[in-house]
This record gives sequence, C-alpha cells and structure tokens, in this order.
Amino acid sequence: MSELLLMFAARAVHLEELVKPALAQGVWVVCDRFTDASYAYQGGGRGIPQSVIGQLEQMVQGEFRPDLTLLLDADWQATQPRRAQRGIEDRFERESADFFTRVRSVYLARARAEPLRMFIVDAVQPLPEVRSMIIAALDQHFKRLEKDVTR
Amino acid sequence: MSELLLMFAARAVHLEELVKPALAQGVWVVCDRFTDASYAYQGGGRGIPQSVIGQLEQMVQGEFRPDLTLLLDADWQATQPRRAQRGIEDRFERESADFFTRVRSVYLARARAEPLRMFIVDAVQPLPEVRSMIIAALDQHFKRLEKDVTR
Repeated sequence: MSELLLMFAARAVHLEELVKPALAQGVWVVCDRFTDASYAYQGGGRGIPQSVIGQLEQMVQGEFRPDLTLLLDADWQATQPRRAQRGIEDRFERESADFFTRVRSVYLARARAEPLRMFIVDAVQPLPEVRSMIIAALDQHFKRLEKDVTR
Repeated sequence: MSELLLMFAARAVHLEELVKPALAQGVWVVCDRFTDASYAYQGGGRGIPQSVIGQLEQMVQGEFRPDLTLLLDADWQATQPRRAQRGIEDRFERESADFFTRVRSVYLARARAEPLRMFIVDAVQPLPEVRSMIIAALDQHFKRLEKDVTR
C-alpha cells in the first residue's frame, strides 16, 4: 500500500509541475510508465484491489488520461536474456516470473478494454521491428485524430 | 495532494511494521501525531476535502483507530514566543497564522465530535499544568476502561 501511495505522490507532483504546464504550452509529453503501471504492478502484481487504485487515480488525476499508450509487451521468459545482460535489478525486477505474469495479464486486459487508447507492440521482436510497429501505431493514431478534426 | 499521499505512505509502513506488531505483543503504543493531523493540516490547512482524506484513512487503516488522543491545544499567537525560541522552522511552521487557525479549528471540531476518544489539553498553560491535565486525562480514560471491563 505504501508503494502504491508513493507512486501516486510522485505522479501528483509530476503531473502538476511538469506534465500539465508542458501541455498548456502545447508541448507533446511522452512519459515512460503511467497509471496503467500502477494497475499492473501494485494491482496485478501485489494484489491491491483495482477499486483502490481507481480511487487514487481519481484523487490525483481527476479526468486526466493519456491520449495514447504504447504497451511494449513480452513474456517474462522471452526477455530473460535481455535482463541478464542488463545487470543490476531494481525492486520490481527481483520479483518472480509469477509476479510478472500477473502484471502482464493486467496490462493486456487494460489494452483489450481500451483498444483506441492502448496499442500493443510485440517487444519480443528485434529493435528495428519494434521501432516500425511503434511508428505504425503513431501513424494510425494521428490519422484517426485528423479524421476526428476534419469530420 | 502529494504531501497527503506521502503522509499516508509513511503511515502505512509505520502501522504495519511498527505499531501493529507492538500491539500484537501487548505493548502500549504512544504516537506523536496520527491521522487527525492529516485532517487538520492537509484538510483544514491545505483545503483537501475531508472525504478524500477519509478514503485514504480507510485504505491504509481499515477500521484501525487510536484508543485515546490528547490534543495539546494552543492558539497561534499564544505560542509565538515558544516558536521564536525554537529556531529553525519546518515546512509547516513557515505557514501563516491563517493556516494554523484553519488547522486548529479542524482539530477542535474533531475533538468535539469524538469527546470519548479526544481529550483537549490547554497547552498555553505552563508545563507542570499541562502535565497534570494529561495525567488527569489518562486517569479518566483508564477508569472508563475499568468500568467497561467490570460491567
């Protein structure tokens, strides 16, 4: 619970002091992990009820949500060699394969529930392929935005 | 909001790792500030809705509450000489008299709403008198407990 509250404490400052002022100036904000990660890690991984995370999301963000989320998806086994190369593990990376299976299933469930916002990228592929898929996702997103504007 | 979340993040660890294990061993726990302070400072002082603080209290504490709370009450003006003596001010002590008036009014409202749990001690009095009042409050509390046990 403390971990979850610390994540949202950091998010509150990040939103008010960095993200919202940048958006107000018309800057595009790209963020490495956001509230989906809280649902996946503290919800799926640690077992905190999704409703509790939803209450915190409402407190800290109100109706504020990302426009587009790219989910770089890979199963735990497939990314073992990459993790081995990387060396030092953080608080989360020390968790079990089981933990990451639960994290991943929440991420995928969220992506399925919000297909217009969340785009799943197969991150098991080599970097050039991953890059192409991300560019394709961005293209699709901006084409949709254009349609919405011209409609 | 971040300040409030950090307070409850600290409280969650404090409760699970220190307070609850001590109580489970039959140790009496005396705590300098608890959730009333969140209602007073982040609620009264900073203007966060009491309902939001109540949601966090429920998340972190469930039905866990202190048995007895001693409110050492003094108005801001009366304690100015003491603060002047103390030197370095923390994040809260730098706030305005107005801030502390709002903090105090929430504390007093809570004491009035829960007279069996919260006991108001007039902390403007000199230390020996404050000490006597605290002892009287404890006596009264334990007599009430005895009555509950023997009844």
